[in-house]
Amino acid sequence: MTMIPDFYTDEVIKRALSEDINYIDLATDLLLDDDAQTTAEFVSKDEGILAGIDAALRVFTLMDDTVRTERLICDGTAVSKGDIIARVTGHTKAILKSERTALNLVCHMSGVATATNRLVNACKGTKASIADTRKTTPGLRALEKYAVYIGGGRNHRFNLSDAAMLKDNHIDAYGSITGAVTALKAKIGHMAKIEVEARTMEDMLEGIAAGADVVMLDNMTVEQMAECVRAADGRVLLEASGNIDINTVAAVARTGVDIISSGAITHSAKVFDISLKVRR
Amino acid sequence: MTMIPDFYTDEVIKRALSEDINYIDLATDLLLDDDAQTTAEFVSKDEGILAGIDAALRVFTLMDDTVRTERLICDGTAVSKGDIIARVTGHTKAILKSERTALNLVCHMSGVATATNRLVNACKGTKASIADTRKTTPGLRALEKYAVYIGGGRNHRFNLSDAAMLKDNHIDAYGSITGAVTALKAKIGHMAKIEVEARTMEDMLEGIAAGADVVMLDNMTVEQMAECVRAADGRVLLEASGNIDINTVAAVARTGVDIISSGAITHSAKVFDISLKVRR
Amino acid sequence: MTMIPDFYTDEVIKRALSEDINYIDLATDLLLDDDAQTTAEFVSKDEGILAGIDAALRVFTLMDDTVRTERLICDGTAVSKGDIIARVTGHTKAILKSERTALNLVCHMSGVATATNRLVNACKGTKASIADTRKTTPGLRALEKYAVYIGGGRNHRFNLSDAAMLKDNHIDAYGSITGAVTALKAKIGHMAKIEVEARTMEDMLEGIAAGADVVMLDNMTVEQMAECVRAADGRVLLEASGNIDINTVAAVARTGVDIISSGAITHSAKVFDISLKVRR
Amino acid sequence: MTMIPDFYTDEVIKRALSEDINYIDLATDLLLDDDAQTTAEFVSKDEGILAGIDAALRVFTLMDDTVRTERLICDGTAVSKGDIIARVTGHTKAILKSERTALNLVCHMSGVATATNRLVNACKGTKASIADTRKTTPGLRALEKYAVYIGGGRNHRFNLSDAAMLKDNHIDAYGSITGAVTALKAKIGHMAKIEVEARTMEDMLEGIAAGADVVMLDNMTVEQMAECVRAADGRVLLEASGNIDINTVAAVARTGVDIISSGAITHSAKVFDISLKVRR
Amino acid sequence: MTMIPDFYTDEVIKRALSEDINYIDLATDLLLDDDAQTTAEFVSKDEGILAGIDAALRVFTLMDDTVRTERLICDGTAVSKGDIIARVTGHTKAILKSERTALNLVCHMSGVATATNRLVNACKGTKASIADTRKTTPGLRALEKYAVYIGGGRNHRFNLSDAAMLKDNHIDAYGSITGAVTALKAKIGHMAKIEVEARTMEDMLEGIAAGADVVMLDNMTVEQMAECVRAADGRVLLEASGNIDINTVAAVARTGVDIISSGAITHSAKVFDISLKVRR
Amino acid sequence: MTMIPDFYTDEVIKRALSEDINYIDLATDLLLDDDAQTTAEFVSKDEGILAGIDAALRVFTLMDDTVRTERLICDGTAVSKGDIIARVTGHTKAILKSERTALNLVCHMSGVATATNRLVNACKGTKASIADTRKTTPGLRALEKYAVYIGGGRNHRFNLSDAAMLKDNHIDAYGSITGAVTALKAKIGHMAKIEVEARTMEDMLEGIAAGADVVMLDNMTVEQMAECVRAADGRVLLEASGNIDINTVAAVARTGVDIISSGAITHSAKVFDISLKVRR
Repeated sequence: MTMIPDFYTDEVIKRALSEDINYIDLATDLLLDDDAQTTAEFVSKDEGILAGIDAALRVFTLMDDTVRTERLICDGTAVSKGDIIARVTGHTKAILKSERTALNLVCHMSGVATATNRLVNACKGTKASIADTRKTTPGLRALEKYAVYIGGGRNHRFNLSDAAMLKDNHIDAYGSITGAVTALKAKIGHMAKIEVEARTMEDMLEGIAAGADVVMLDNMTVEQMAECVRAADGRVLLEASGNIDINTVAAVARTGVDIISSGAITHSAKVFDISLKVRR
Repeated sequence: MTMIPDFYTDEVIKRALSEDINYIDLATDLLLDDDAQTTAEFVSKDEGILAGIDAALRVFTLMDDTVRTERLICDGTAVSKGDIIARVTGHTKAILKSERTALNLVCHMSGVATATNRLVNACKGTKASIADTRKTTPGLRALEKYAVYIGGGRNHRFNLSDAAMLKDNHIDAYGSITGAVTALKAKIGHMAKIEVEARTMEDMLEGIAAGADVVMLDNMTVEQMAECVRAADGRVLLEASGNIDINTVAAVARTGVDIISSGAITHSAKVFDISLKVRR
Repeated sequence: MTMIPDFYTDEVIKRALSEDINYIDLATDLLLDDDAQTTAEFVSKDEGILAGIDAALRVFTLMDDTVRTERLICDGTAVSKGDIIARVTGHTKAILKSERTALNLVCHMSGVATATNRLVNACKGTKASIADTRKTTPGLRALEKYAVYIGGGRNHRFNLSDAAMLKDNHIDAYGSITGAVTALKAKIGHMAKIEVEARTMEDMLEGIAAGADVVMLDNMTVEQMAECVRAADGRVLLEASGNIDINTVAAVARTGVDIISSGAITHSAKVFDISLKVRR
Repeated sequence: MTMIPDFYTDEVIKRALSEDINYIDLATDLLLDDDAQTTAEFVSKDEGILAGIDAALRVFTLMDDTVRTERLICDGTAVSKGDIIARVTGHTKAILKSERTALNLVCHMSGVATATNRLVNACKGTKASIADTRKTTPGLRALEKYAVYIGGGRNHRFNLSDAAMLKDNHIDAYGSITGAVTALKAKIGHMAKIEVEARTMEDMLEGIAAGADVVMLDNMTVEQMAECVRAADGRVLLEASGNIDINTVAAVARTGVDIISSGAITHSAKVFDISLKVRR
Repeated sequence: MTMIPDFYTDEVIKRALSEDINYIDLATDLLLDDDAQTTAEFVSKDEGILAGIDAALRVFTLMDDTVRTERLICDGTAVSKGDIIARVTGHTKAILKSERTALNLVCHMSGVATATNRLVNACKGTKASIADTRKTTPGLRALEKYAVYIGGGRNHRFNLSDAAMLKDNHIDAYGSITGAVTALKAKIGHMAKIEVEARTMEDMLEGIAAGADVVMLDNMTVEQMAECVRAADGRVLLEASGNIDINTVAAVARTGVDIISSGAITHSAKVFDISLKVRR
Repeated sequence: MTMIPDFYTDEVIKRALSEDINYIDLATDLLLDDDAQTTAEFVSKDEGILAGIDAALRVFTLMDDTVRTERLICDGTAVSKGDIIARVTGHTKAILKSERTALNLVCHMSGVATATNRLVNACKGTKASIADTRKTTPGLRALEKYAVYIGGGRNHRFNLSDAAMLKDNHIDAYGSITGAVTALKAKIGHMAKIEVEARTMEDMLEGIAAGADVVMLDNMTVEQMAECVRAADGRVLLEASGNIDINTVAAVARTGVDIISSGAITHSAKVFDISLKVRR
């Protein structure tokens, strides 16, 4: 079974199929024979980490549950150009009508996993892990968070209800980081962590003293981050944030921060090129 | 009123909000005063074409219909760093809880519009227009197609039900382009156009003779396309397709093709950076 | 597999079943034995074209996936009184609870197909084809458009997003048909056709000159239509529209128009009588 | 406020609008000015009973809540050709995009009310009332049942869960009408009535003796029904059923039955012609 | 097959699963082996009537359709501590992710059935049956009404559309019970019963005379109810209502009323304790 | 604005209204005058903590947005018998049709808040806080978690995706608590806490050593818990769990545990009695 439950993925797929088909496929349904059978293969035309192949294969099953699907490569595997990822066999009509929706899913998700993995690799040898953010594509957060995990990243909080991030507005309401953290601790559940945004080392130190679980070093230079790491001395988890990319991530990681979060891995990942080849 | 009807956008927004909030916002709801009021502004941190600001403002209305929203710059306008795009005033809690979802929408859509616009600009002075494809993000086709239009592109068919594209499989079933086009014309509605994929000039000529409305020149070189344009001599619309990007699009456009379609403008557009600044 | 994908039909069916059952079937669930088995047959009590039998059989599967369904006659076949169309075998409870919803679907769709087919037959020997309109029953457009196709008709545009029809309001905004068509051609996608409503031959000629793909002859007399056909001389597709019925359609078809559109085939088709007979 | 709650009607309308618009209206959105304003009127082109005007006006509100709607004639009123039913004023774009969906609703519902009313009128002077059945259009049962009521009919049970109808299968399971009614009375709630299908006077008499609330005289001749009425002598409600139409209904009513049920008033009602005229 | 159709229960289950899983189960999905298999058993830790085991088992099927489920005890059976109710075998991950949702359903529904059954038993030897009300848990009416039936109760009307209850407001509008009942009888369908709330014996007698099907004795003392029963003398069904509980129900039943309705059996039933034990 | 966003509550309400109304309210819609106006008041008939009054008032707005609602007492306030909580004024029909659904919501939620508050009060003077569990009513988790918070409790994790609880199965897969916690820490996101179920003090100590954030003392005696508190010496948060009720909670709290979790406050809370009184 898949990590993301089918009942969830099915809703995403039905929505996508509804976008792609109002009632019939004018070319396929008007031209092809009902009984025609085809075998087609998902072939990688790119290098990176596969994610979403189960979701892609599920499209065919939802379109026509007599289509047989066979996964040859699992999510999380590094694939190269030419690798055959999966195979579908069944009604030609069903396969052609499912193709675009299936590819849109697996190409998007593999793009996220691959972008994540590039940052992960760039941090090899440091203790830093790569995390996602809430900057996800509307409607696809679960699938993108999963793809980040598959790409070797670690998931930040899923949403506003499962952990607390204290920003300017929250802190201003209580006059200080200490005030806000204290007030929050009096009300928040025991399973929810508290993270504080810090613009300066003073902020960070106040966050640590107030009992924050995590401090985010917001848009600091590499030097500032390194100083913060030294000053924190392991008393809190430190998250580096702010337009960190493949060129800068290694330097950030070497400062000793625990987590580097990136919105780009979900909101700006280049699609991963996979095509569906009909076998003749 | 907006081009995309609210009843449609509302569904996308509610889905996105449901992803971002399970029940409450732990930081905002537990710390801030119910009556606190804020004014905040959408500020551009990027250069490009704005798209989706109405959708973004709608998020606040759905969260709390007492929030007042004011659009200062319309979709389709070129914006620069520092431009103030819109303003929201109301309960601080509502504004903070809506922020991320609103930004995710407008940043994604403006990214698509901006990517489209770059290709459009690169083709200035030619007759070529830029078109999208069915390679859209699952669940966001309507918003992305709209963003392409806003960016100066023209929309390709929305889905499989409103126009026909004949590919290998369809053609093989009838033995020839002529056979497939003829069979389709006997059944398809009078408002649906027929496009034929051509790998060679011969394919194109056969498509023209068979009465196709559009011929797609699939993965041809610039030279091949130019030859096809000459041979077609205006008898059919010609669409160039196949990994055309900002570096190659001008050369393609100069061949005289009518349409250049790009999947990258929807599936791989870099997010457009906009932030929400609370006014103090 | 069916032309209309199951994921679509299932939504229509679940909605219909929810209307028909709040929680249990008071007679069936309180009286019959859980294990009782029945075989029942769909029997035609009418003459015409069958449409929707797959949707009807799907109702039983959704109610109870152990019910076995067997289609004996396919959509599109001419059926007569007494013909056995399909057979279902399984739990008596499931069959009785599904019966009304299944019949409501197949009787409605076959009614549409049959009404279409009567017009199609009346036009035999002419080049005119019968098309539907957007005057469909709310919530059933896809199934009705499909039934029209099954009845031998051709589908007009599915909706407002896949082709353009220029009416008074659009033309008034630009002062002339020429103005409106020209303005639209500068923006519309290359796969979307443009149809112009014409009240006079002058309108039609202006539409042709402006480059419309189709001209609708709106509420013209047979004589006016014949004149228009002669004047158009094959330069454009001509669609006749306006309360054309089984008595008048042949005369209209003989004028030489290409398409005759009818709202009545979807919005006022008499139901086709089919019953479910339990075999004893 | 309307009898059918808005939260219900809104779902039907959104579904219908989604069928009619994938993303934009190609003609209206690409050609008309955002600020253009229009007033348009619903004008009757038919004779009969109006039903559904509130639902129709609600379409405009859902499309654009700045459109002002004014109902001039209420549901249930007899209207004639030329009567102005309602008026809408606002953005031209919103009005044109809502028009077809609004008309599809009110024309369908008024068709049902009018068909019902014709049967009601034909029974004037008798005690018979006209009732609907479960033979409704999938997805529209609530609106059709309401239209039947508006047309002067009385609603039969809404669905399988609110009253019990004993047919052959139920009776066979217990060997006799008496057995089945007795078994059901031991389990069914005190607010649910029990109706028994009778093919003969003996069936009817057995139903009465067993304590049925209603007996349906199924496909009997007028003479048989009259005999049953005499024999029942007011001890039970009698419902006449079976392909009764405008030509035969009066004779059936004169037999003295209490209720005459008709599937045709919902499943085969001719649409009622109403158009939306833009005021110039 | 189950009495409540799967298409209905599935919606409840998917909603519950969506509450319980945003994307993955952090413990189970990150720690356990994909291929690990488990057998687990539903074991009763309470005494009472089982209801909802089919719904509970359906959770596992929706999570992973390769899980095998086996029901050992049917809904409606009296179970004791230690009884093994059902067994599930399959992927450990699927079983652990489904457990809580499955238990929440069956424990809630069995709680309702058990609370109902206690009242039913307390009325043994009288003619009184126990009925539910519209005081149900939002979103669970169908499942709770079913559980009441399973517990030996009889279902009151499902909702406002299937039978009429006349309260103060309705009666005030017509000046008297007689006026209101008469007005309603002129419009209501023949399958819908009418119940009148009576605060005094006079109300009851007026209701009987007006032709009410049922009279509710509202918050009367046992003595008043007994007098009403005598005075009614079998001419109408009498329903006792008003905070009747396990301590008072027998005395009420002995007055000779026909129905005793209780909101507490649905809105305040203590959960029935069942656990899922993994077999080692 | 409310803590739970309207877009969420509206879905719960529409679902509940759909359960309560198939199409019309037979008594109210057939008898009352469209224009009749009423004022009605929510009056407490119980003692405890109010929760859900905003949700209840929202029902009237969704039914008819011209109804004016006025909240006199806020969620979280202790109310007594006779307190007037809120007032609604508008169409009598709208008020009567909304009444039951509104009461079902506020009575259920206030029941949860009140049950929570009783446990909270019983722990006054200790450091223990009361927490909920995942044993919530299907479909109502967000509203119940909110009611627990309103009643003075603290929310445990919302679901399986926002924090990890290690039970037998997870621990067995790695042979030891240490193994499982270590494996999980290598993969889980930095914002998610880890809780370990402990049956013995040894389990607890191993959990602490492995770095668990919270240890649950599962079904221990008060003496065992007190020993664990002493042995833990503040190194970890301790949660007491296992059929703790109003009679035993104080003794558990005095052991010094940090959190006491209770399923009964959500799954078995007695409804809180509130009625809607029409003002005459």
